[in-house]
Amino acid sequence: MFDHVAKLKEYIRCDSVSADPAFAPGMQRCREFVAGMLRELGLKVEIVPTEKQPIVMARREGPASWPHVIIYGHYDVQPPDPLNLWTSQPFEPEIRGERIYGRGSADNKGPFLVHVTALAHLLAENPSLPLRVTMVVEGEEEIGSPSFHGFIEKHRDKLQGDLFLLSDTGIPSPDQIVITCGLRGIVTGEVEIVGPKGDLHSGLHGGVLLNPIQALAEVLSTLHTPDGRVNISGYYDAVLGVEPWERDELQRLGTSVAQYQEFLGIPRFHTPPGFDPFEATRFQPTLEFNGIGGGYQGAGSKTVIPSRAFAKISCRLVSDQDPDAIWALVERALHERCPKGVSMTVTKGHQGPPYVVVPPGRSNTPKGQSPVLATAFAAAEEGVTKVFGKPPLFLREGGSIPIIADIKRVLGLDSVLMGMFLPEDNLHAPNESFNLSVMARGIEVSKHIMARLAGLAR
Amino acid sequence: MFDHVAKLKEYIRCDSVSADPAFAPGMQRCREFVAGMLRELGLKVEIVPTEKQPIVMARREGPASWPHVIIYGHYDVQPPDPLNLWTSQPFEPEIRGERIYGRGSADNKGPFLVHVTALAHLLAENPSLPLRVTMVVEGEEEIGSPSFHGFIEKHRDKLQGDLFLLSDTGIPSPDQIVITCGLRGIVTGEVEIVGPKGDLHSGLHGGVLLNPIQALAEVLSTLHTPDGRVNISGYYDAVLGVEPWERDELQRLGTSVAQYQEFLGIPRFHTPPGFDPFEATRFQPTLEFNGIGGGYQGAGSKTVIPSRAFAKISCRLVSDQDPDAIWALVERALHERCPKGVSMTVTKGHQGPPYVVVPPGRSNTPKGQSPVLATAFAAAEEGVTKVFGKPPLFLREGGSIPIIADIKRVLGLDSVLMGMFLPEDNLHAPNESFNLSVMARGIEVSKHIMARLAGLAR
Repeated sequence: MFDHVAKLKEYIRCDSVSADPAFAPGMQRCREFVAGMLRELGLKVEIVPTEKQPIVMARREGPASWPHVIIYGHYDVQPPDPLNLWTSQPFEPEIRGERIYGRGSADNKGPFLVHVTALAHLLAENPSLPLRVTMVVEGEEEIGSPSFHGFIEKHRDKLQGDLFLLSDTGIPSPDQIVITCGLRGIVTGEVEIVGPKGDLHSGLHGGVLLNPIQALAEVLSTLHTPDGRVNISGYYDAVLGVEPWERDELQRLGTSVAQYQEFLGIPRFHTPPGFDPFEATRFQPTLEFNGIGGGYQGAGSKTVIPSRAFAKISCRLVSDQDPDAIWALVERALHERCPKGVSMTVTKGHQGPPYVVVPPGRSNTPKGQSPVLATAFAAAEEGVTKVFGKPPLFLREGGSIPIIADIKRVLGLDSVLMGMFLPEDNLHAPNESFNLSVMARGIEVSKHIMARLAGLAR
Repeated sequence: MFDHVAKLKEYIRCDSVSADPAFAPGMQRCREFVAGMLRELGLKVEIVPTEKQPIVMARREGPASWPHVIIYGHYDVQPPDPLNLWTSQPFEPEIRGERIYGRGSADNKGPFLVHVTALAHLLAENPSLPLRVTMVVEGEEEIGSPSFHGFIEKHRDKLQGDLFLLSDTGIPSPDQIVITCGLRGIVTGEVEIVGPKGDLHSGLHGGVLLNPIQALAEVLSTLHTPDGRVNISGYYDAVLGVEPWERDELQRLGTSVAQYQEFLGIPRFHTPPGFDPFEATRFQPTLEFNGIGGGYQGAGSKTVIPSRAFAKISCRLVSDQDPDAIWALVERALHERCPKGVSMTVTKGHQGPPYVVVPPGRSNTPKGQSPVLATAFAAAEEGVTKVFGKPPLFLREGGSIPIIADIKRVLGLDSVLMGMFLPEDNLHAPNESFNLSVMARGIEVSKHIMARLAGLAR
């Protein structure tokens, strides 16, 4: 019998920090642990090298008539520091109450094991299960998945499946599962304004030239309307409308606007017209300033006119905004609004497109959506409703997981993103933990989904 | 015979860096050198302790009927680093061509010795010179003269003179002396804007709240008009008009607008209407942003919405603007223009009032101006014209020397600021030097001024 708690403990003990080369042995042990575990299930395992951390790929093959589900996970974790804030050791799992503590317990070791365990149980009950399964477990998620796009392009033939299934998103409470149906895209960049060729004495020269900080402030101040929209012509042209069912789902979220405001610690919300705070993050794009700098920032004062000033910008995008097209609009607006007397350089950073999938059976289900995907969504809804006592919420989210859009673009596949971690799981923070009751119920749901895909259940 | 070059070499060898406690022995040697030199002239020397660096005060007393000139200098210098950019050692003077190289040669050891040498020569020729002289040589000028205000308040009785005479300002070329007739005041401060209680994930929460960087940019962008004035009601109310003679003096400056633009390295000037660049720095106040910061400023991107952002502000003021009153206007404007959804804190920094003296004989000479001051100005004009071959320019300057306004406010005394250093003297920079030809001619002018004050010359 596959003991998922024992496996999770062993998995957490592999100190697999991808960001820090000092953890290379832990990364290797972790890969070997995953490979061994999947071999035990009878899967054919390959360890695929990349420029950084190899990807574990494991396959249960079968006739082309069997449906093919691809399960994604990542074996790398965030660095554990600050160590002094942990109650128990980050890489020595400890169960306290219904939670298991340890770095990676919730992100993503526990949630990935939900699906591994479900498959193990199903195969134990039915060794000839008519389902093809591919597991793809990467080791670079916490450093931005730089090798993943190239991996799926190169292995496109082995990844001709029906859908991806994964749990690397969140839920608001232990009995409210969320199936994430959309993610915002992102495009980042930087604007720099240069004035005089060097910093100048503000007494000797102040009053004769445009200060680069002033020019930057003037440009940045034009980028939003007073009512909270991005003030760039064409910015919203590709933004999809919101379906009534999407707003209805949000009504069932279970968090109040007042609770959210308290959490943020702000005196008031500032959302675009027509969108409440829960809607704004999911259905609207943004243009945010992530950083600004220029001149003297130390204690007291230094009376210089700085030579340069810069701001870092990121735009969160919603379907069907294209990152390249949006950045072109931003770049043009910045240049057009740059006052004379200074020069401007705009640099583009990284990007990822937005993603959206319409759950089958809702209004406007796109034509040509795979019937296997429809089965998976229906099975998820049935399973969650039965096991958790409440139907899942089908929601778009404000964050970005660029690999999901990559999978759609490169392989043409949608994903069933079954949320498993809670706000209190402390992802990326000290005392990360995972709720074992959520895990146990998640296993039942995953098992139901795979059984239905194989044509076994109901 | 007083050998001013030998004295200057000895003076430069005292490594008197006030900012760095490691140089305490050099500071002490330097004070003792100054005290000894002034004792040699027959002056009564006191070393007056302060909280940091003692002030050397030396007096040549005499009957109350003798005019009383107070000569100011400072014996401290800027730190010498970066040392690797010096051609010769900073504290080992070296003469190359007509220049003497060494830290402090131009700021302020050489220019101060101009007046000491002039007095030495005069006293050698006329031991019973009917002139009272007080020398005040501080050791904290390069760290902002924190003890000077208290010193003149405490020793007000000994500083009941007719005028101050000093050389700690610049000239544009070796044959064009400038008598500085005005200095801008200053008031500094900082504005901080706080939004959410911590940095937020720009994906999960972007779109629901006002970003503090955006709020800061919006507030800062309101503080200037497009044509280059400060956009705060009442800001210019106390600004004195410009006399026609002041504009005429500037016509003789000898630097073209094109040369100035090349020096600054800017594509165009941005001056308030009605003022060319040379006028704007002297006759108009400013509000400059000296620094700005907030959020992530490292390489690449970090997609946070920062909790806070700040800007450092300094206002250069012209007579008769009052630093307290101006800062009150700035603070009120900032608060009034702060958008809802964030909170703002405004903190005042240091300040110093502007200073102006109308050279006697020009239009609008204030009533009650001391006849001794008039004699000093006339003697400076005669002396400079004769020795340098060109009359001096009487100009206000854009920089701030708060002690000059303090002297006016506390003691009621005006100053004759006889410029001595050149742009190429590299003050505060490696390879600081002083032009010995300017020095020799400056000594003749100073001698003429003191002789005239004593009723001897012409």
